Amino acid sequence: MTDPDAGPTLTDEQINGSTAGALRSQAVCNLPRPHRDGGLSLNAALNLRHSTWEYSDSPLDRQILSELLWAACGVNRPNGGRTAPYWRRVMIIDVYASMTDGVWLYDPNRNALLPHLHLDIRDQTGQQAFVSTAPLNLIYAAHGERIADTSTEERRLYASVDTGFIAQNVYLFCAAHGLATVFHGSIDRAKLAQAMHLPTEQFVTFTQTVGYPRIHLDGH
Amino acid sequence: MTDPDAGPTLTDEQINGSTAGALRSQAVCNLPRPHRDGGLSLNAALNLRHSTWEYSDSPLDRQILSELLWAACGVNRPNGGRTAPYWRRVMIIDVYASMTDGVWLYDPNRNALLPHLHLDIRDQTGQQAFVSTAPLNLIYAAHGERIADTSTEERRLYASVDTGFIAQNVYLFCAAHGLATVFHGSIDRAKLAQAMHLPTEQFVTFTQTVGYPRIHLDGH
Repeated sequence: MTDPDAGPTLTDEQINGSTAGALRSQAVCNLPRPHRDGGLSLNAALNLRHSTWEYSDSPLDRQILSELLWAACGVNRPNGGRTAPYWRRVMIIDVYASMTDGVWLYDPNRNALLPHLHLDIRDQTGQQAFVSTAPLNLIYAAHGERIADTSTEERRLYASVDTGFIAQNVYLFCAAHGLATVFHGSIDRAKLAQAMHLPTEQFVTFTQTVGYPRIHLDGH
Repeated sequence: MTDPDAGPTLTDEQINGSTAGALRSQAVCNLPRPHRDGGLSLNAALNLRHSTWEYSDSPLDRQILSELLWAACGVNRPNGGRTAPYWRRVMIIDVYASMTDGVWLYDPNRNALLPHLHLDIRDQTGQQAFVSTAPLNLIYAAHGERIADTSTEERRLYASVDTGFIAQNVYLFCAAHGLATVFHGSIDRAKLAQAMHLPTEQFVTFTQTVGYPRIHLDGH
């Protein structure tokens, strides 16, 4: 954040506060309680899992967003355990939701979205045009400082595999709920981190688009 | 395979043939057809997902093994698509099953286990004692040569995330079927690759133990 080319220089207070221009200018968005039972079987979801490259711009309602994020890496036990495992029991991956109204940080403990950036940066989350119009792009970002005792390469490996656990939950949830999704490996990580005003110790691992599949009307 | 300290030197013919001592001396093990529907809901599986560090030595029967491996990265579509995504549509991860009777390579297209090594090397698959007695340790190995156009670091990142997708399927399958599992990050990859007689272009990413949870009999 001290690179003058990286956009406006922000103090820690601004980054962590609630009045820093586009940063965190919204209220916390509490999510409805997710369902933890019912719905399609795991086997059926596995059987339907696939990637989609054509999206409708229909928004996701708050209930489905809540259930999606809980499936991704929600708390599933009284001890705070999650739906996705994490290396050495140190949670390093944060899930951000990039939508039309800005970027939100999912807080699994509060089951809420915390305002992070009041800007639509969906077009930064992938190289394909649909990322700009699909209602949701998840951004996976790792806290490198939480595993400071490992080498830079190891950090990235573990951040990658931990992202894979979460992203597969998203794939299966989408398969089970008629949603469309695709995981992105080819992204401009540095540019996206800058657009998000991420602190230097955090780094983007991957992104994943979620929405409804675009319906083709054949025969008009 | 040309390092004299790496054990007996094997020719390509020996490695790829069927008569090389411990290597591939068994017949192909065809697996029963996996169920693709029914069973616990995805939500319930997500809610039950956890890691386990205490295992019974009870074996897994062939039906559950077949369903587990199909869930992990089986074929779920006529076009050969899998239950787990893979980067740039190039499948680089092989799943090996290390059991009492040796190491087998899962072939998703044939729904079969191909004999790889007629040796019990379970004790090489992790640092904790239970890996030696749990009935199954999955070994995830990547074909670096299939993404030769990427840097070594990128290859490891993509191999890591692709492993995460598969491993999360295993986690959820285990949660849905009363099985126990844990993913291993701290393994001696070079030693394991050597024990497996992996070609140099392949590398181990991670391992994952699967079995039944050890039941504690309280009060005798």
